[in-house]
Amino acid sequence: MSHTDCKADNMLHGGEIYALGEIRQDFSVNINPLGVPEEVLNAIRAGLLNVECYPDRDCMSLREALSIRLELPGENILFGNGASELIMLLVLGLRPKKALLPVPSFSGYEHALRGAGVPIDYFFLNKNAGFQPDEGFLEALVHLSAGDMLFLCSPANPVGNTLSKAFLTELAEECRSRQICFVLDECFIGFLPDEEMRTMRQEAVGNPYLFVLDAFTKRYACPGLRLGYLMGDRERLTEIARLQPEWSVSALAQIAGTAALHAPVSYLEDARLLITTEREYLTKSLTDLGFIVYPGEANYMLFEATDAVRCEIFSALLKEGFLIRRCAN
Amino acid sequence: MSHTDCKADNMLHGGEIYALGEIRQDFSVNINPLGVPEEVLNAIRAGLLNVECYPDRDCMSLREALSIRLELPGENILFGNGASELIMLLVLGLRPKKALLPVPSFSGYEHALRGAGVPIDYFFLNKNAGFQPDEGFLEALVHLSAGDMLFLCSPANPVGNTLSKAFLTELAEECRSRQICFVLDECFIGFLPDEEMRTMRQEAVGNPYLFVLDAFTKRYACPGLRLGYLMGDRERLTEIARLQPEWSVSALAQIAGTAALHAPVSYLEDARLLITTEREYLTKSLTDLGFIVYPGEANYMLFEATDAVRCEIFSALLKEGFLIRRCAN
Repeated sequence: MSHTDCKADNMLHGGEIYALGEIRQDFSVNINPLGVPEEVLNAIRAGLLNVECYPDRDCMSLREALSIRLELPGENILFGNGASELIMLLVLGLRPKKALLPVPSFSGYEHALRGAGVPIDYFFLNKNAGFQPDEGFLEALVHLSAGDMLFLCSPANPVGNTLSKAFLTELAEECRSRQICFVLDECFIGFLPDEEMRTMRQEAVGNPYLFVLDAFTKRYACPGLRLGYLMGDRERLTEIARLQPEWSVSALAQIAGTAALHAPVSYLEDARLLITTEREYLTKSLTDLGFIVYPGEANYMLFEATDAVRCEIFSALLKEGFLIRRCAN
Repeated sequence: MSHTDCKADNMLHGGEIYALGEIRQDFSVNINPLGVPEEVLNAIRAGLLNVECYPDRDCMSLREALSIRLELPGENILFGNGASELIMLLVLGLRPKKALLPVPSFSGYEHALRGAGVPIDYFFLNKNAGFQPDEGFLEALVHLSAGDMLFLCSPANPVGNTLSKAFLTELAEECRSRQICFVLDECFIGFLPDEEMRTMRQEAVGNPYLFVLDAFTKRYACPGLRLGYLMGDRERLTEIARLQPEWSVSALAQIAGTAALHAPVSYLEDARLLITTEREYLTKSLTDLGFIVYPGEANYMLFEATDAVRCEIFSALLKEGFLIRRCAN
């Protein structure tokens, strides 16, 4: 194993380009392939002197713009320094005694739960069923008690499969009746053509046991800015915000986020189209080459090879400056 | 009382300009009067496309530059999304059973402690002694137990007075022997001409009960960026970082901070000179007008008037677009 291999083995997340030498193209982060909208860059340029002011703690302009876009009351939105801050705040603010995590899943949930010392129950999703949670997952809720927490991501990370609205509704109802805090991560939902039909964010308003997470990161290709938001019951968000530092969302992130929401609708539409076309092409090509490609609808794909082949591909691509993500963890 | 007065009464911190209408000059935030260095703005402009990458979780370039500037090992520095994130992390990570706060003091300590439900002992500093902590403050430590926490700010906020190195050393030793976590906030120390002689950051290395806090905010006039750092024992910083979200420091804050550290030395020297000159002028003028001006060495001043006069001044200045900070809280 080469030196870069060892480093890559320690990678818990994509985009860790800093220790890996020169990267020409980073495919390990699953953000919008069109790059950050020009409107966002222009807004930051124009508003650069705002770094001299404390950020607006209430994110008023941004809140208004997002509230209109989502058709959601502004008071049901909590902004954070990236979705990762909100995940940490959920865990610290709601203090579950135990949490349930599907495997595979986004490493950030585990980071927050372990940091806070919350014991984790793992539910291993069935590989042969494309890692799709099913009735067995619902049954696993019996091991949780009131106040406990469940994380789920749809479209799922790293598989890219989605959960039906019917399944999510059933899960949310079950969680509510058992007083289990259901955190649904929709950070990749912006790439689905029928986002509005699939999202559970309207359902989160007024349900103190459902929290929907989203971010500007993936949708607008700006992970470096740090801007996420949590949607849920107003009083619960206040409870969670108790532990939030005073000026969590930087002035530039607020300016950028507001500009992103005013970017032409075609930006997201073009991205969705590009992803659909490229996914079809890549799925066929990888399958033809003998890889197992898991079905998904997101802007990234999970495919499988033998250990030896996997290692070889990763190293060969990295030598050429292309970084893909290994999902060993 | 006018409408703006009522709003201002709810202000816990300076810089809350967003709800107060048009502000021509905001004197309520105590940042570098020279404004953000041009080098910082240029670096952000040049590095703008870094918003498309996840920030470096280890802040390697920034860490190296700061380590050289402070002559402190990089591993003894923890970067955060502003000093306010680090204050919250100290409280959440070290979980004191009780904390001691001097009054008056920065509202952020109370925000973090209350958020985490930590009981607070208040030590009322003597106004007639210029709010200077003395032996009585040292004696107050007997009410704390091992694992408890003490916050202190030098130069103090909002008074601007400083503590002698001898006093701070005595306090740090007393805290260490009692296993009390002493958090010393040096966010304003950059404006003292003899900063190097006054700071306790070297003492924090290897002392698991001393934490020194600083930020780019005041020194480089960039509160909108969110960039702070905590200096202390390596293992203790690791303990605290357990609860930090994964990419707390944005890509632009890292670029800006690195550029600030490479800005000409004259930038801070000029600011120090300007502050000294203006403080003398303002102290004399305010004293001549009959106000009580408290002695201080920082880039802000605390002065006192009767309640009626205070209210009148604040409103009159606000009408003209000048915001000063009321210290009612």
